[in-house]
Amino acid sequence: MKSFKIALAQFSPHIGNLEANAQKMLEQANEAKKQHADLIIFPELSILGYPAEDLLLRPSLNQRTQQAFEQLREIKDIVLVFGFVNETEDGQRFNSAAVMKDGNILGIYNKQNLPNYAVFDEKRYFDEGHQHLVFEYLGHKFGVLICEDLWSLPTVQQLAQLNVETALVLNASPYEVGKPQHRVQTMTELAKQLHLNVVYVNQVGGQDDLIFDGTSFVINQAGNVALQAPTYQEGLFYAEYDAAQKHFKTAEISPALDTLAEIYQGLVLATRDYVQRSGFPGVILGLSGGIDSALTLAIAVDAIGADKVQAVMMPYTYTAQISVEDAAEQAKTLGVTFGIAEIHPIVNSFMQTLYPFFGNSPSDTTEENLQARARGTILMGLSNKFGNLVLSTGNKSELAVGYCTLYGDMVGGYAVLKDVYKTIVFELAKYRNSIADTPVIPERVITRPPSAELRPDQKDQDSLPPYEVLDAILYAYIEEDQSQEDIISKGFERAMVEKVIQLVDRNEYKRRQGALGPRISSRAFGRERRYPLVNGWKAGI
Amino acid sequence: MKSFKIALAQFSPHIGNLEANAQKMLEQANEAKKQHADLIIFPELSILGYPAEDLLLRPSLNQRTQQAFEQLREIKDIVLVFGFVNETEDGQRFNSAAVMKDGNILGIYNKQNLPNYAVFDEKRYFDEGHQHLVFEYLGHKFGVLICEDLWSLPTVQQLAQLNVETALVLNASPYEVGKPQHRVQTMTELAKQLHLNVVYVNQVGGQDDLIFDGTSFVINQAGNVALQAPTYQEGLFYAEYDAAQKHFKTAEISPALDTLAEIYQGLVLATRDYVQRSGFPGVILGLSGGIDSALTLAIAVDAIGADKVQAVMMPYTYTAQISVEDAAEQAKTLGVTFGIAEIHPIVNSFMQTLYPFFGNSPSDTTEENLQARARGTILMGLSNKFGNLVLSTGNKSELAVGYCTLYGDMVGGYAVLKDVYKTIVFELAKYRNSIADTPVIPERVITRPPSAELRPDQKDQDSLPPYEVLDAILYAYIEEDQSQEDIISKGFERAMVEKVIQLVDRNEYKRRQGALGPRISSRAFGRERRYPLVNGWKAGI
Repeated sequence: MKSFKIALAQFSPHIGNLEANAQKMLEQANEAKKQHADLIIFPELSILGYPAEDLLLRPSLNQRTQQAFEQLREIKDIVLVFGFVNETEDGQRFNSAAVMKDGNILGIYNKQNLPNYAVFDEKRYFDEGHQHLVFEYLGHKFGVLICEDLWSLPTVQQLAQLNVETALVLNASPYEVGKPQHRVQTMTELAKQLHLNVVYVNQVGGQDDLIFDGTSFVINQAGNVALQAPTYQEGLFYAEYDAAQKHFKTAEISPALDTLAEIYQGLVLATRDYVQRSGFPGVILGLSGGIDSALTLAIAVDAIGADKVQAVMMPYTYTAQISVEDAAEQAKTLGVTFGIAEIHPIVNSFMQTLYPFFGNSPSDTTEENLQARARGTILMGLSNKFGNLVLSTGNKSELAVGYCTLYGDMVGGYAVLKDVYKTIVFELAKYRNSIADTPVIPERVITRPPSAELRPDQKDQDSLPPYEVLDAILYAYIEEDQSQEDIISKGFERAMVEKVIQLVDRNEYKRRQGALGPRISSRAFGRERRYPLVNGWKAGI
Repeated sequence: MKSFKIALAQFSPHIGNLEANAQKMLEQANEAKKQHADLIIFPELSILGYPAEDLLLRPSLNQRTQQAFEQLREIKDIVLVFGFVNETEDGQRFNSAAVMKDGNILGIYNKQNLPNYAVFDEKRYFDEGHQHLVFEYLGHKFGVLICEDLWSLPTVQQLAQLNVETALVLNASPYEVGKPQHRVQTMTELAKQLHLNVVYVNQVGGQDDLIFDGTSFVINQAGNVALQAPTYQEGLFYAEYDAAQKHFKTAEISPALDTLAEIYQGLVLATRDYVQRSGFPGVILGLSGGIDSALTLAIAVDAIGADKVQAVMMPYTYTAQISVEDAAEQAKTLGVTFGIAEIHPIVNSFMQTLYPFFGNSPSDTTEENLQARARGTILMGLSNKFGNLVLSTGNKSELAVGYCTLYGDMVGGYAVLKDVYKTIVFELAKYRNSIADTPVIPERVITRPPSAELRPDQKDQDSLPPYEVLDAILYAYIEEDQSQEDIISKGFERAMVEKVIQLVDRNEYKRRQGALGPRISSRAFGRERRYPLVNGWKAGI
């Protein structure tokens, strides 16, 4: 029995690029060796990245995996525990972990519990494992688990009954608000209950709509947290086991982030990874003088730097002068490229072309949508010409009720606030201002009543309930699966609830064609909320 | 032992509208009684419809199902076999069939084999059943199976070993080219092998991107087809069992459709159901004088009638005069509303607004996209004003390689040709002309070289390989999962294959924001092809 040192590789893979991932893992293992680590553990499916979706079905995956193994075989004198796709000769495919030393595979573990709910589709790709992997190294008994396994009490109990001292847990656990703390709290109880040390390493980085927060940790069987890695940061973190004291020594304990900081930094990370890993030189967005685009701009600048961000103001008749002023002020404060493109002549030419069809029919949302689509086309034109990605600026509240224009303000490759309710947009704007000497979002943008400025003197609240009420209804319906009658019984006005739910249900088609955006809630408009478009379900019970 | 009569209800449910579905089932059962049927069998999950996706997770589903049961309890003197979601008190949820007589449930069967591949996600929603259901009625021994169960030889063997004479099989089996014939061929072999009569009833109707073709059948254990219901038609079909001869008497045998008729009629059905069940009064589409929009128009007219179809020609500088002539001719032949909207002034106003940004940068696809987006905005304006659904006209070949403009020609709620390769578009156009006295698609539209008409004298083949070659490469890559090297080894030019595959991979983001369209292949761009957008996978092996 001797003391030892474990490196937790809080790793950000590039999904699908096995060669690059293996190369980076090799570099991290070499760095860990320099720090005298005896073992390095990587996240779930670290060679391929998570979730790789139908890349998992590609016929050459196994060959690519074997090539990555060859890269990793170069590392000597340190034990590697990493995730890979294990395709067996009898045609099974497992979500697996390998234990490798000096180029030899000492053991393979196949994940036993395959999540197939919410954002997870693992049963589409994987077979279930049925056996534990336990190994002794440096006089210490280790077991291996993969993500969902740790949340299955019977699985962990079985491992504990094999006299395992430390569970090495490989994870790709997506972020949602409060989840970093929730994991540590739950696993503290589990460690105590089963007398098991838990070494938990999580993937980090944005992958399409999913944010992986890292926040890896080590918990001793006594229930004390020995290591808490930071949220959202890639890096190597070390835990030293003291054989005499039979515990992991207390090492770096990164403080948990406040909720608003946690959300804000998550959006920044997701945006950065989406833009950079898609190979865009920068981003462009429409700045309206409103709070959604103001917050999106701040996030974009924090994600990739002001020199890579272009903002365009596209005023029309109904745009208030203060909107133009506030947009210009924010662009100047943040130091981004700023331009103004008038859309009057464009909207007029559409109106003239459509006049023979429309005749004297009264104005309605059609004309408002023309404004939004003129703006969308300008942004896409600038994107096409110069290569920057268009960021869409709509929030969750307006996407929920369809208060947005398909092919208009919805254009873009990434919708930064897609999963952020309007009430939280305000909080995040205030939060971002609070952490800077100079507020990056003009105060007036936060305090003036929200307006889409598509009609004279229009205010959002003319046609929608106040956002505090709207968001409460939406949260109950979307996140909590409450029925219309449930929500009404909580004291909300019947007509208002009926209208909101009808809008949510009817606007599924818009969301289906909308851009991806980072998920921060337990029920985002994305891969975890799957409704048919042709759908006769009636709201009610 | 006596003779009896079974009604096969080739049923088209309205997904999610349990009350309406139960009402329709009640009417069908009453009609079957009038025809002296002893038993009526409905498709898989007939009360709810298939696939209901996350409606299956709604807390009130069970209450709604129970209400539908109450509706069905009114039917006396006929045995009902129908599909429903069975939520048990211990929290399990099954894809089930009930056998009901005179309001009493005689037995419940829980589906044992849950497909979770391709377009199927049943493990997201259901638990697996583990028990067969066998019942005796009129001296005959029946067993019940649900869809995928029939394709599991062990499951069907077990049922046959219980001395079952006839398997009643409830299905929601989505169409793909050739599948109707494939089912009958496979089940003929199975019936003979296991000495089992097979009564196979399939859902019919379009549901978002899926087409259910019906094509229900009855096969005797001797291997002869006793009943073959037509493809794509809702209705009640009857099979009479002759107890003396111990077989189902030969009844209606609808001839199989030729491949082109099968595809064409499937697209018509899918379009009709999408438009009507979404509640649109009609459709609108841009007619370019090219073959894609010409075929889409013909399908639209066949689906919902010329009086509900509006076509708009939107010429620009590069539009040939013959395009305008051909579009007008087709609109006239088909009798649809036709209008012309010039886009010159709109494109010019965009160019003027963008000039301060673009300066003297050379023209590229940016300017072409402006034309497409001007057209898209006009169509959406007309849709917004008058309520018609925009049909998108792009085909699978161009969607595959991104030869289409996001928010331009891709606008629309339903993309009729989304899963139809360009070479098949030509075949379908000729097919449609062949079945009418007067060709509905002008001959010149079929024979002239395809062009997007976005540049002077542009032809598709200037920047793409000939469609025969392109489609062959695409089919190998998409439908057959062949790798780049596989395809090159078949004799295709390396540079061409590399370019095509790179285009397919790079344009995932466009397809992700595209409209739904009916699936006719074994690998459509839809729920069965799920790739990450941020994706470092390199083509090659």
